Amino acid sequence: MKILFQAISILILMIWPASRAAAQERRHNLMPTPAEVHFQSGKLAVGATFSVAVKGHNDRRLEAGIDRAMRRLEGRIGMELRRGPATDAPSPTLGPTLGPTLGPTLVIECREAGESVPSLDQDESYSLEVSDGRAALKAPTVIGALRGLETLLQLVESDRDGYYIPSVKVEDKPRFRWRGLLFDSSRHFQPMEVIKRNLDGMAAVKLNVFHWHLTDDQGFRIESKKYPKLTGMGSDGLFYTQDQAREIIAYAAERGIRVVPEFDLPGHATSWVVGYPELASAPGPYQVERQPGVFDPTLDPTREEVYQFLDAFFGEMAALFPDEYMHIGGDENEGKQWDRNPQIQAFMKERGIKNNHSLQAYFTMRLARILEKHKKKTMGWEEIMANDLPRDVVIHSWRGPESLAEAVKKGFSGVLSAGYYIDLSYPASNHYRIEPVAADKNLSRQEEARILGGEATMWSEYVSPETIDSRIWPRTAAIAERFWSPRSVDDVDDMYRRLAVTSVRLEELGLTHEKYFRSLLRRMAGGKEIGPLETLVSVVEPVKQYNRGQQRPTTMLSPLTGFVDAARPDSEAARHFAALVAGFLADAPRFQTNREEIERTLAKWRDARPAIEAITGRSAILREAEPLAAELSDLAQAGLGALACLAESKAPDGQWGEVKMAILQQAAKPKPSAVEFAILPSVRQLVIAAIELPQLRGQPPLEWQKRVKTLAEVARPQ
Amino acid sequence: MKILFQAISILILMIWPASRAAAQERRHNLMPTPAEVHFQSGKLAVGATFSVAVKGHNDRRLEAGIDRAMRRLEGRIGMELRRGPATDAPSPTLGPTLGPTLGPTLVIECREAGESVPSLDQDESYSLEVSDGRAALKAPTVIGALRGLETLLQLVESDRDGYYIPSVKVEDKPRFRWRGLLFDSSRHFQPMEVIKRNLDGMAAVKLNVFHWHLTDDQGFRIESKKYPKLTGMGSDGLFYTQDQAREIIAYAAERGIRVVPEFDLPGHATSWVVGYPELASAPGPYQVERQPGVFDPTLDPTREEVYQFLDAFFGEMAALFPDEYMHIGGDENEGKQWDRNPQIQAFMKERGIKNNHSLQAYFTMRLARILEKHKKKTMGWEEIMANDLPRDVVIHSWRGPESLAEAVKKGFSGVLSAGYYIDLSYPASNHYRIEPVAADKNLSRQEEARILGGEATMWSEYVSPETIDSRIWPRTAAIAERFWSPRSVDDVDDMYRRLAVTSVRLEELGLTHEKYFRSLLRRMAGGKEIGPLETLVSVVEPVKQYNRGQQRPTTMLSPLTGFVDAARPDSEAARHFAALVAGFLADAPRFQTNREEIERTLAKWRDARPAIEAITGRSAILREAEPLAAELSDLAQAGLGALACLAESKAPDGQWGEVKMAILQQAAKPKPSAVEFAILPSVRQLVIAAIELPQLRGQPPLEWQKRVKTLAEVARPQ
Repeated sequence: MKILFQAISILILMIWPASRAAAQERRHNLMPTPAEVHFQSGKLAVGATFSVAVKGHNDRRLEAGIDRAMRRLEGRIGMELRRGPATDAPSPTLGPTLGPTLGPTLVIECREAGESVPSLDQDESYSLEVSDGRAALKAPTVIGALRGLETLLQLVESDRDGYYIPSVKVEDKPRFRWRGLLFDSSRHFQPMEVIKRNLDGMAAVKLNVFHWHLTDDQGFRIESKKYPKLTGMGSDGLFYTQDQAREIIAYAAERGIRVVPEFDLPGHATSWVVGYPELASAPGPYQVERQPGVFDPTLDPTREEVYQFLDAFFGEMAALFPDEYMHIGGDENEGKQWDRNPQIQAFMKERGIKNNHSLQAYFTMRLARILEKHKKKTMGWEEIMANDLPRDVVIHSWRGPESLAEAVKKGFSGVLSAGYYIDLSYPASNHYRIEPVAADKNLSRQEEARILGGEATMWSEYVSPETIDSRIWPRTAAIAERFWSPRSVDDVDDMYRRLAVTSVRLEELGLTHEKYFRSLLRRMAGGKEIGPLETLVSVVEPVKQYNRGQQRPTTMLSPLTGFVDAARPDSEAARHFAALVAGFLADAPRFQTNREEIERTLAKWRDARPAIEAITGRSAILREAEPLAAELSDLAQAGLGALACLAESKAPDGQWGEVKMAILQQAAKPKPSAVEFAILPSVRQLVIAAIELPQLRGQPPLEWQKRVKTLAEVARPQ
Repeated sequence: MKILFQAISILILMIWPASRAAAQERRHNLMPTPAEVHFQSGKLAVGATFSVAVKGHNDRRLEAGIDRAMRRLEGRIGMELRRGPATDAPSPTLGPTLGPTLGPTLVIECREAGESVPSLDQDESYSLEVSDGRAALKAPTVIGALRGLETLLQLVESDRDGYYIPSVKVEDKPRFRWRGLLFDSSRHFQPMEVIKRNLDGMAAVKLNVFHWHLTDDQGFRIESKKYPKLTGMGSDGLFYTQDQAREIIAYAAERGIRVVPEFDLPGHATSWVVGYPELASAPGPYQVERQPGVFDPTLDPTREEVYQFLDAFFGEMAALFPDEYMHIGGDENEGKQWDRNPQIQAFMKERGIKNNHSLQAYFTMRLARILEKHKKKTMGWEEIMANDLPRDVVIHSWRGPESLAEAVKKGFSGVLSAGYYIDLSYPASNHYRIEPVAADKNLSRQEEARILGGEATMWSEYVSPETIDSRIWPRTAAIAERFWSPRSVDDVDDMYRRLAVTSVRLEELGLTHEKYFRSLLRRMAGGKEIGPLETLVSVVEPVKQYNRGQQRPTTMLSPLTGFVDAARPDSEAARHFAALVAGFLADAPRFQTNREEIERTLAKWRDARPAIEAITGRSAILREAEPLAAELSDLAQAGLGALACLAESKAPDGQWGEVKMAILQQAAKPKPSAVEFAILPSVRQLVIAAIELPQLRGQPPLEWQKRVKTLAEVARPQ
């Protein structure tokens, strides 16, 4: 269900009108784009004498943040910077007469510390003014200053002579207060350093909620001292100790990131009941689930002992996690165990509870009261919504902006994740176009204010510590911009231009999204000669949705070291090729623009086959990718044929069209390698153009170009 | 001094006679090569039904080791393996009539647990027999079994149809008992995960001593609860807590690796005396040293309070580190503070201590007795050697095999590091040729037995967590082979062939040596288009010895993100090119062999210049690398000119030789980028050949080839 809804909402949004180019004073490399940014002439040199001083409030968190920023700046410019006492007094040995430029280069002025445990209400605003001689960063809180430091780092540019920051005035604050990344540690456990580097990545793009999905059917990942069998039997020994959780919470808080833990109930509960089968709605024994999917084990909402257990458990967790919100899951409970349990059926009858939805509402109410007792507010997936639920509950929507709008109309607050499911392998542009506030629901200002923001969701059925960064980054930076920047920032091309820069910069935090896949290819190939495999992997993407599980079934214990794991969502090569093809077709009926580059590209793909097969022929793990080489070659030949027909203005011969369309159809079929050709729509566009456009011979260019526009629609994958 | 000696010993060993090709039954990819390995016909398929059973002794350490090995195997073959109870009984549901191949594929038979804290005497031997249907691994101890599992993983090969292990009999045990990696955490602190992945790398190539250099002038890295100011003032907050040290010790012990901590005294002591200036031989205050080099701060060996401090400190460390050895450093004490301290001079006079060497011997004796009291044996650099030192002290030699031979003749045991200084950026072949047992010292069997082994030394003046793996790997695998394998295993070409395979396999442990540099280049370039930079970086190496510090001075706080950091020791491109040139010249006077590939290669280098300069022109951090593009182009043109002259049998025109030799000389000069052209000797060989060989016109081929052989010597860098 959840999956289907995701599909629909994404398909709907794929046909969102092409975004207009936002008027920008100057191309910049900022992501997210600040609320207001005005460039001026002049620049501030960033060299070895660059120094920072703090004016007004100062504390350890700010100093640590400055230190981290300076280390990153040093790494970029390759120079050691002066570290000095945090003061903005001009250097006394130089004397005041030498002018203000001899003081610190950057003065940071904070009004106060802000919250040590960041909350929904933390003030993240800042202003930044960079002029020829000096930069001033002002913020009401330390976290605001840290957000501003990230902007400052993003402003640093270089030419041959050195690094500099262009003169600029920035006034910035986030559009939404809740800007999260759901991080699923249950399906595949992720080590501490993976979480830390991703928290650094989040801070770099100004995300502020680490939604930590800690329990699910496939593993219970947080230590409970009260109930040691939760991890003792439900985690394969892979869990975070409470000390480690505290370390993550502190690491996040240092960066102004909240940690909202999720304990998924009453469904998704297998790992709870492995150690405590008495909590379940059917007798055990249970085993940790190894498959992806939705499973039956569900807590029994009718027994007091269950609530006593939850009271003690959530009491323990409430003391561990300082955030005011706790996420109780609540999704995808199909109630099968409830239907089959006579005692539960009797309970429902006795209390007049009509169906499972109402029974879950009863459970949610009880659980919300337990959380309230432990001074926590409740958050849950939208299934938990019920009329008698208190309105301080936050509804987490996986259905879509319309559904979220319904929730806020009922008085709830809400956070959107529908459309931000980064585990589904859609391109960044799809997510970027998703707008949390439904346009057509006539929300009042008050209602709109209850839309708190959104969360990208990194469900981890198919990610390992080696691959997870590549599924989160760089696409999540585009989502972070949607959450932070004004709604008017919506130029997809410019987003991609900035995303490429951002992606490389994110590498300085140790994120592995740009570098992991060559290592994987080398290991698959058993050597360093992987050029041909790089060509192949650059034109494919993992299949969308959860089709990977159908085409290439794996369990939670399977290795994630296959060709599909080296493939990345949002192929850059395919996007570049699509732009080339679009330009070529728009040049109808002349068909010369980009022709050479398209030809060169297609010829490379056509000719890659023997070299790819030489590698796949030596390595059994690559055998599933072997047919791709021939398919790529066939696709490239189809494209080359189409190109020739169009450029030379001749209709294709006889059966050409039929044959080539059959090849395209074949290449579009599900494959055991669970990848798909990201270049397919562009090749299809060329082939259909070659078949159809010659019919327009003799007509004016405008007619041709009109027809070209419709082609993009026709060529879309079914 | 130490540096100079290193240089001399390495230069001497560079002219070791070219190694003969060891007779091998079959090319294998094992590293280190086992003591005995005999391949047979047939093979054992490794697929999804591969399973392991343990016979005889079993324990948690063995099971964890098997689990790690199976995870790696799964990752390679891309399949999930069966996990079952550890028994070798045939699967009961299948019944015994279906034959033995339905039992476990691999049976591991251990006699006993072996030492839980690995010692110098741990038995690491094992035997492995792989036949068509089954593999049997036998070992007296669990650690022996783990060593055998690494061999098993290295035996796995693939063709298109699947993975397999060739039928083979292996009888294996190490040549030396002490096979270490010195890991300097002082100059640059390294996080826990960096250490862990390197311990995994060590285990993969059967190294067994992690020599942890924990204190030096530039930082005190281990928590002392008794003396908190050691890290409190001497570490910049970068140190290992005792819990973390225990975690590393346990992680290492799981892999049969000893952890020998080094606390460097009485010199290299700055970080000790920052917090405790009263220990020093001159009044403070002191600050943590930021420069590389040798510094004055030295403990005062004449005051009882110093020994009381050391007694308490080493007592605390003795409880923390379970290994029977502790390394007390003892190197490079220049005694300047001693010379200037009248109280110390008076002490020496009073006791008849004639010089600083004797004073240090006094200190060493006192310290050795303290260690003895805490049940530890002493190890130290060879400066500590003195006649009245007990013979259970282990001498750690940085001077060379001859010096080590002297030590064992005096009755000490010894470990060799001279020649294994991997921080000096020499190629693996240099280290590989170093033999711990001096050939010409007529050591008795007993004396030879006191040569315990060796240690590669990763001094960390110029390595960050990002670059350190690339300085350790893959070269340390070649050194590991020198320590483990029989002396007769000495074929350099075959070593390099296996090293390339090993290097890629080491990546599965998370080591970053093969992947970090592209990330660094991307960040320097500010984008993903780094092909031209890759070409440039592939033909250079960091300068040898400690010349980097002269050519490109940096402190311990400087960023290590420059072009030299992306350059790696032991350029593969240069080695390949050298082999091509050698083949070409050996074909004298015909000069056709490899000609085309050399031409193609040189043309690529010649033409790379504009593309490299387009990138360096946009990025200030790359400006230091900018001149390299022109130099590379000039070198390539010189090579092409030489190639043409030789292949076309004509003497170069007029001043050609002079001009080209001047270009070579220019290219050989120290550069601010602190890299050197690794291809220079090969180009020089070509140019000298073009100048000199035409003189032989008319002479028989044999004369030409004789002259070619001398060329290799002439062309060597001065």
